[in-house]
Parts: sequence; C-alpha cells; structure tokens
Amino acid sequence: MNVLVVYAHPKPDSLTGALKDVAVEQLRADGHEVRVSDLYAMGWKAQADTDDFGAVDESNFMLASGEAYRAGTLSPDIRAEQEKLLWADTVLLHFPLWWFGMPAIMKGWVDRVLTCGFAYGAGGTAVPRYGAGVLAGRRAMLVVSIGGKESSYSDRGINGPVEDLLFPIQHGILYYPGMDVLPPFLVHGTIRVDSDRFDDIADDLRERLSGLEKLEPIRYRPQGGGDYDRSLRLAAGREVPGANGFGLHVAG
Amino acid sequence: MNVLVVYAHPKPDSLTGALKDVAVEQLRADGHEVRVSDLYAMGWKAQADTDDFGAVDESNFMLASGEAYRAGTLSPDIRAEQEKLLWADTVLLHFPLWWFGMPAIMKGWVDRVLTCGFAYGAGGTAVPRYGAGVLAGRRAMLVVSIGGKESSYSDRGINGPVEDLLFPIQHGILYYPGMDVLPPFLVHGTIRVDSDRFDDIADDLRERLSGLEKLEPIRYRPQGGGDYDRSLRLAAGREVPGANGFGLHVAG
Repeated sequence: MNVLVVYAHPKPDSLTGALKDVAVEQLRADGHEVRVSDLYAMGWKAQADTDDFGAVDESNFMLASGEAYRAGTLSPDIRAEQEKLLWADTVLLHFPLWWFGMPAIMKGWVDRVLTCGFAYGAGGTAVPRYGAGVLAGRRAMLVVSIGGKESSYSDRGINGPVEDLLFPIQHGILYYPGMDVLPPFLVHGTIRVDSDRFDDIADDLRERLSGLEKLEPIRYRPQGGGDYDRSLRLAAGREVPGANGFGLHVAG
Repeated sequence: MNVLVVYAHPKPDSLTGALKDVAVEQLRADGHEVRVSDLYAMGWKAQADTDDFGAVDESNFMLASGEAYRAGTLSPDIRAEQEKLLWADTVLLHFPLWWFGMPAIMKGWVDRVLTCGFAYGAGGTAVPRYGAGVLAGRRAMLVVSIGGKESSYSDRGINGPVEDLLFPIQHGILYYPGMDVLPPFLVHGTIRVDSDRFDDIADDLRERLSGLEKLEPIRYRPQGGGDYDRSLRLAAGREVPGANGFGLHVAG
C-alpha cells in the first residue's frame, strides 16, 4: 500500500510524535510505501487566504479556490498535498485532540488542501460526495491522543461521546470526499505516559497497523445509495432501531 | 456591555465580513463598548508552538503553556487576547463554517489563547470547568455562515444536526471555561446572497443583538451542579426524557 501520514504536533518528543514514528517504522517493515506530511516541520501555512490562489477573477472565496484549482494556479504546497492524497491508498491523521478538535495547523491543511473543485462542488454542481468523490477507494484512519480519561468521553461522559466529537472530522472531512473511514485509534489519559504504558500503546498501534488491510470501515451511508431524500434528509424508516443524532448516518 | 467580536474571514467583502460590520455598528448604536479581533487583519499566528511560551523548563507542551501563563512569559499577542476576554461581558465569534468547523486561523486563536492555567487545569487540578472557570459570568454567541441548505443540517440531514456539529465549539470551547452560551445566529445557503436577502439577514442580526441581554443561554449542565458522577458521567435518571448523545448535557 501507499500510505500518507499527516502529522501535527509541535514537539517531536511528544506522545503523538512518538506514535507517528512507531507507525512509520511498522508500515515500512510491513512493506508499504510511506510518505509523511509533518506539518510543523514543513512550516505548513495554516490560514487559508487569497494568496493561495494566484490570479483569479472570482471574488467569492470558496468559488475562487475552485477556479484556482481548475486553472492550476493553487500554490505549490497545496498542489503537492493534493498529489500525495491521490497517490495514497491509505491516509493516517496523527494529532492530539485540542479543544475537542484538530490542532489549527491540521485544520489549515484541511481548509487549504481540500479545495472546491478538488474535494467538493459548490451549489449542487457535479462533484459527488459522502462515499463518492475524488478520494473514493482510499481509506483513512485517525490516530488521536486525548488528555482526558475515557469515561468522560463515554456515552454519558461530560465531554460528549468521542465518536460524536470525531464525527465532523471522520464523516464531514474524510468520508465527504469519498474515503472509507476505519475505526479511530484513540489513546486516553495522555498527559503523563510512563515507558511501560507507552510500550503497551505502541504494541497496540503496531498490531492495528499490521491488520489495517483487513479492518472494516465505519458503515457511513453514501449520499447516492438511496437512503436520503431530495432534501438530503435520511428517508423515513431507514434508521437502525435506537439510532439518533449523528448515529443515524451509520448503517446497521 | 463590553463586547469582544472575534472575526475570521480572509475577505472583508464576504457575507461573514459584512455581518461583522453590521454587528459592530448595531452594538455601538446600542451604547455598548466594542472591541474587534479581526484575525486575518491582525496577521494572527494560527499554529500553537513553543515560540509562544518564552523560556520554560517544562517539556510537556500543554504543561509548558501553563508554566508560561503563570510566569507571564506567554507571547504578547496571546496575553492581549486573554486580557480582552477578561474585559468582555459578551463574546461574539463570527466565522464561516469550513469543513464543519472553524477556519484554522480561529481554531488557532482558541488553541493559543485558552492556555493551561488560564482556561483549564491539567490532570484534575484546581481550575473549575463547564459552567465555572475564568470566564464565568460572561456570555458568548456564534454568528456562523453556512454554505449548505438548512435541511441538510436538520435532525435527519446528511451533514448531521447543526447543533451537534457546533457542540464541540459551544460546549467544548465556550462553556468549558465558564461562559454561558446563547443560541447561535446561523445563516444557511450563503454561497450567493443577493442584496434583498442580505438586508433581511442584517435586520435579523440587528434584532438579535438588540435583544442580547434578554436572551436565555443554552442550558448546558455545570460540572459542579450534581448532575455528574465521580467518573464525570451523567448520573442515572438525570436525562430529559428522549435526550441522547450531546443532548444529554442540556438540562430540561
């Protein structure tokens, strides 16, 4: 497989950094081709702005990104990441959960690389989405370090269920342009991790990665599969009994 | 009131930019003091890194931010925003929904300004949270432009219910350090907005802002209010009948 690792942590000696190293080593040992986008080391520009587009006529920001994509005038750092995504069979995103989401620098990778025209259409135009799209046939998986304890991220936990906190990323960012999303690899209670516990976590990650090709993706519902009506609402009676909220969009 | 407007859009002539101008004008007309953090215009640094901290001994990134906070060595741009938050009675966040979250530059405002020590403790230490904390007594409201149609963000909509998509921001970022969160002001279908529709939206926003002091916040449950057990799970029987997922954390 061709595996793209997108990694964001300001400190290489962090748990997130160490797990990225474990992943790259294991994937290469298993014979895969691996490329790493180390966003901090690359000095990745986080904020999307019109400097990304070159000369375009369009004044609407989103449509301008689409015009730049079509004209080939997106800045070289963005085009390089789009090319890596097209090269990859599997994409891993390694990051710490900061304020219940990605670090800004990784959100900036999403905002800038997944441009109009490449990853989505605008106003009902032709780019398909949710289970179809430019990245269809690829698989993605999150590897996330979370400071708090698992119970506070459980079904009744005060922070909200972690699978719901990750839905805007897993469904909204990864599944939207067509990738199948594998269950996330989550590590809780990461403020202080001693070496014994680190060894256990690293072993778990190696095992997960060695079995990557056999892992079943989360069964998000494709937009084009007949589950949604013309208003893009889940059609009556399609839900798994007891499902609700984001869970409606997972098939049984 | 003292109102802090935090605003993120790369184009001043965008709908988000125009609505920020409407808000500032209306708030001033109503006699409030207004300060604006225009993140793009300020050249706000989005990525959190160790350059933010000055000289600290701590190697753990999160704990280092707390040490820098206590030692007063956080970079001046961060300290200025913390001071604005303490000055404000009300905080408005104006942004477009990009990939189901904030633009990276605003996530970077959150990541960098809400440091350990200021907005949260680490590992069970003393800073209270969820309905209590450094920003208690303040109110916050989102003003969000959303490209897609309202139906696709409804209870059964393919993108997920918008109140759930915003939960990590409203509950996880704003309520966590103590702010009461007012219902968001949302504008859907924003790719092309003609001048008649803009006038209607602007009128709605002016009306909302003029009634701001009478608005009731979302009834998120405080961590210290007796609703949660020692594992920080909602205690049995506390839920509003029919509530689930993130909705468990809203009182009836």
